[in-house]
Amino acid sequence: MNSTPIILITNDDGVFAPGIRALISIMRDMGEVVVVAPDQPMSGTGHAITVRHPLRMQKIREEKGYREYSCNGTPVDCVKLGEQLVLKRKPDLLVSGINHGSNASINVIYSGTMAAVLESAIGGVPSVGFSLLDYSHHADFTPCAPYVRMITEKVLTHGLPDSVCLNVNIPAINGSDIKGIRVCRQGRSRWVEEFDSRIDPHKRDYYWLTGYFEKLEENEDTDQWALENNYVSVVPVHFDLTAHYALATLQNWKLDAEKG
Amino acid sequence: MNSTPIILITNDDGVFAPGIRALISIMRDMGEVVVVAPDQPMSGTGHAITVRHPLRMQKIREEKGYREYSCNGTPVDCVKLGEQLVLKRKPDLLVSGINHGSNASINVIYSGTMAAVLESAIGGVPSVGFSLLDYSHHADFTPCAPYVRMITEKVLTHGLPDSVCLNVNIPAINGSDIKGIRVCRQGRSRWVEEFDSRIDPHKRDYYWLTGYFEKLEENEDTDQWALENNYVSVVPVHFDLTAHYALATLQNWKLDAEKG
Repeated sequence: MNSTPIILITNDDGVFAPGIRALISIMRDMGEVVVVAPDQPMSGTGHAITVRHPLRMQKIREEKGYREYSCNGTPVDCVKLGEQLVLKRKPDLLVSGINHGSNASINVIYSGTMAAVLESAIGGVPSVGFSLLDYSHHADFTPCAPYVRMITEKVLTHGLPDSVCLNVNIPAINGSDIKGIRVCRQGRSRWVEEFDSRIDPHKRDYYWLTGYFEKLEENEDTDQWALENNYVSVVPVHFDLTAHYALATLQNWKLDAEKG
Repeated sequence: MNSTPIILITNDDGVFAPGIRALISIMRDMGEVVVVAPDQPMSGTGHAITVRHPLRMQKIREEKGYREYSCNGTPVDCVKLGEQLVLKRKPDLLVSGINHGSNASINVIYSGTMAAVLESAIGGVPSVGFSLLDYSHHADFTPCAPYVRMITEKVLTHGLPDSVCLNVNIPAINGSDIKGIRVCRQGRSRWVEEFDSRIDPHKRDYYWLTGYFEKLEENEDTDQWALENNYVSVVPVHFDLTAHYALATLQNWKLDAEKG
């Protein structure tokens, strides 16, 4: 890439979260930056889009080579608004995050941060999501910086394989304890729900979603293993949900022979 | 399956939508049915979960072998509530829909209907989403019935391959014109945004998300092709987003050699 790259940034923790501030400060050294991010926390919004109420967007800041907007929509809305109304073109790179908390293994499917990355990749833009394994507002994002820089530089140089984006997770340890980067696959895991049932002052039941994370494998080629062993995990992610390995089994069901 | 199967039903168009009513009426012949569905339309909510406000759930109806609840959450919340608080076990089958409108090709990623199916499959439950290619409230779901019955009977009999669920789409034509069922893969396509920009009575800008659907391939093994050629499409779907074919390319980047 010869000219200055145009970089679109979003997240799901909201435009004022420390994680996106860390990401912005790294990216401003690398290109022209436009930020379009939610005006409130949007964790766990998955690939939601806003169709039932109007979207609002507000310019917060403008400097040479830098514009920042907040929006009342989801991270996916932010990507769409950023490309269509702010940039009026596709960016050269989209980065999302740095998320406060893991988006490794099954978390990728609930993640607004990664939904923004997938949305951008559907449109053909090289896109990367970054997450630090620390949910705290006061998390230390310093150890992320060299990895964010290195990975985004590689992506700007090489591009990404067709229809592929990256899910990068970073362990919450001192930078000097990080052993390196592992390219790996999404580990098998799930959340097991335990609703916290309560009664409000008007005697009506309500429920808070809680639960615990259950690992379903320990294999060394997974993101979970990499993170537990102090590596940064890089998972290539795509938006073809087809279970190609299951096509033959289903074809053997001979559903077509039994036309209703 | 010898005993009466326990069937959990949800959707994203809301508990009073005609599509879920059609699905309920078919399923009540097949097993003990529990419905937990959103109390309002939740189209386009993707895999969103509700963590920032409390969940409410209300029993609407109870008869022998049948219970129905509405909930203020997303389709994914409905699955979690249905399993944990209503059934207090995993159902033998989850069905979601019948959606008013297509969830074929890239639509699967935005779909609340299919998010519920994926959520249930993550927990190991055989799960199927049904959609009719007609967005209208007054759509005719009659032609869906034999296909819904045939496919769910097959799933109850054979189970599904590990970590696989089904995305079934049905063309909006007369039943006699449906040519049969095709097992196929998710076709390549995308939505191209065109925001409708307006000014409110207080002189502030707002935007409605609109756009058009763009097919990116015409191959005969895709769901798009099947539907355009009057077949019911059945796509096996999974929740491993890893682009396995891209692992080798990324490993060749030798990211690890450049520890930050």
